[in-house]
Amino acid sequence: MAASSASASTLCIYRLRNFEFRNGTTLPSVHLAYLDINPQSPRTALINTAFRGRLNSTCTFANGALRNHRIIVVALFGNGESASPSNTDGFPGEVDYTDCVRAQHELLTSHLHIDHVDVALGFSMGGQCTYYWTLMHPRYVRRAVIICSSARTSRHNYQFLEGPKAALLHSVDYHGRDARESAGPSRGLCAFGKAYSAWLTSAEWFEEEMYRSLGYATLADWDQATTAANYVGWDPNDLLCKLGMWQRGDVTAIPGSGSARLEDALAGIEAQVLLMPCRTDQYFRWEASERESRMIARARFRPIPSIWGHLAGVGINKDDTEWMDQNIAEFIG
Amino acid sequence: MAASSASASTLCIYRLRNFEFRNGTTLPSVHLAYLDINPQSPRTALINTAFRGRLNSTCTFANGALRNHRIIVVALFGNGESASPSNTDGFPGEVDYTDCVRAQHELLTSHLHIDHVDVALGFSMGGQCTYYWTLMHPRYVRRAVIICSSARTSRHNYQFLEGPKAALLHSVDYHGRDARESAGPSRGLCAFGKAYSAWLTSAEWFEEEMYRSLGYATLADWDQATTAANYVGWDPNDLLCKLGMWQRGDVTAIPGSGSARLEDALAGIEAQVLLMPCRTDQYFRWEASERESRMIARARFRPIPSIWGHLAGVGINKDDTEWMDQNIAEFIG
Repeated sequence: MAASSASASTLCIYRLRNFEFRNGTTLPSVHLAYLDINPQSPRTALINTAFRGRLNSTCTFANGALRNHRIIVVALFGNGESASPSNTDGFPGEVDYTDCVRAQHELLTSHLHIDHVDVALGFSMGGQCTYYWTLMHPRYVRRAVIICSSARTSRHNYQFLEGPKAALLHSVDYHGRDARESAGPSRGLCAFGKAYSAWLTSAEWFEEEMYRSLGYATLADWDQATTAANYVGWDPNDLLCKLGMWQRGDVTAIPGSGSARLEDALAGIEAQVLLMPCRTDQYFRWEASERESRMIARARFRPIPSIWGHLAGVGINKDDTEWMDQNIAEFIG
Repeated sequence: MAASSASASTLCIYRLRNFEFRNGTTLPSVHLAYLDINPQSPRTALINTAFRGRLNSTCTFANGALRNHRIIVVALFGNGESASPSNTDGFPGEVDYTDCVRAQHELLTSHLHIDHVDVALGFSMGGQCTYYWTLMHPRYVRRAVIICSSARTSRHNYQFLEGPKAALLHSVDYHGRDARESAGPSRGLCAFGKAYSAWLTSAEWFEEEMYRSLGYATLADWDQATTAANYVGWDPNDLLCKLGMWQRGDVTAIPGSGSARLEDALAGIEAQVLLMPCRTDQYFRWEASERESRMIARARFRPIPSIWGHLAGVGINKDDTEWMDQNIAEFIG
């Protein structure tokens, strides 16, 4: 159907009526933004966006391992495409991955009439949301690919996020939760980006001046892009909303999980899971993924051999992307 | 001499006349603050303060491996005790470890009439200054102890520091280089501390809740102390002054070094050097210290087996302090 093919990268909107967030807020209308790529394909993939991810920057494997799948790419609440502080009056101060999964489940079942997902995939926050999917709808998701992520945000990861958060909250041009910021860069976003920047990759990456491979002649040039240009168009309150969801990420806190022990929670996963942390990720550390892999009945642990740290999983470095693509292809068979 | 003993922990001041800083600024009078502990002892130790170090918090080994030494503890320019933006009109915007060493050399030779230093020791920025000493006065320093430090600030370390720096510079209550801040806590200092906090120790340290060993029941309690109380009394411009010196730390940039290659510079060290990085330090990484140890003629490489990360070297954790003390005792014989 030519029309379907043409709509491959068109942003779609699904509206949910009277949606109740976990924090108790109920809104008469909230929306999910998503892409529906290759809608005629017989197998279905579900991909969630990451922290600073937009729908169109979250299609890394669409032309690779997932090219024969119908791919639903869906934006997390708070990313500025789905309902977020910047685009929805009364949006709650705290959102939760369970909110994202409940809304997405309605989208997939009631609206798109998809009866199961063959592979759910996510990087970073997208991986956390994917973990929630495997536990909130264990039989709906057949396989899960978790890239540079974790089932529970570590204390170290939590504390790292306190840095950029505080840099923004205390900045001279942050005007509070209720202010609609202009979308341009600001000193607060610059401070946010600076406080985040050294975590993104790895010490080895800096040592070997890998920013050159991205076209930056000097560290200062890379810094300028990373801490300013990268944040153009991002609303401060949207970033803070998602950051809070990330900090609270913890599958043992899913209502009804019944145990605060990670091993008990992860024992509930029925999907086959491919875990691909990066060997040099400074905050979603491979050691945590390895521990998780031992708590999941059918897990495959494949750490990315790269000095790109967390960014290895985002699709920015060709070698890492090809490595992941091949591992995903083998995993989904 | 009872008087000497009584003066052990008294803060001493030495004034330098017409001191010319490396950046070209000349001031009619600048001062060094120092302690002179056990002045009657035959052997001499020189200890420099670290980034957030005061003289009285920099005496870790005074009652241990160095107890039989006369110990000169000297404050880096910018620490608020020696000449600093907060206490000296016209203090230069950029200071350099070479400024510290030149001033300290005058103190030790012209004022204290010390003809050599048996052991120079420093943690973190103090270690960097110690490295400068070994190269600016190779025969004056017989042994050097470098704790959680490096001869050249790595790009990763540099970029990490951009975070707290930006958090402070863009904060709502930072009023610029020329403003004398009140000494109390501020939102800018809080943001600085937050952006710094997750780097201080290690991922394992957070995972194992080691803040409990410091008396904090929760991560939030530790965070509160680390990002607020720890900065009470610190002047924002003093912190920025020292942070810049740290970022520019590079022994190959010592005037007359003649080579930008670290191996060429470190070949000039005549002192015996004990390098004690920490296995889990996230920014002064042990791998860099190991490389340096191979470039130094008489080096001993002893990584601290600890999950306390950078803080292993500061003397906060008893086991690490005892481990270092023993290694220093063996090293100085």
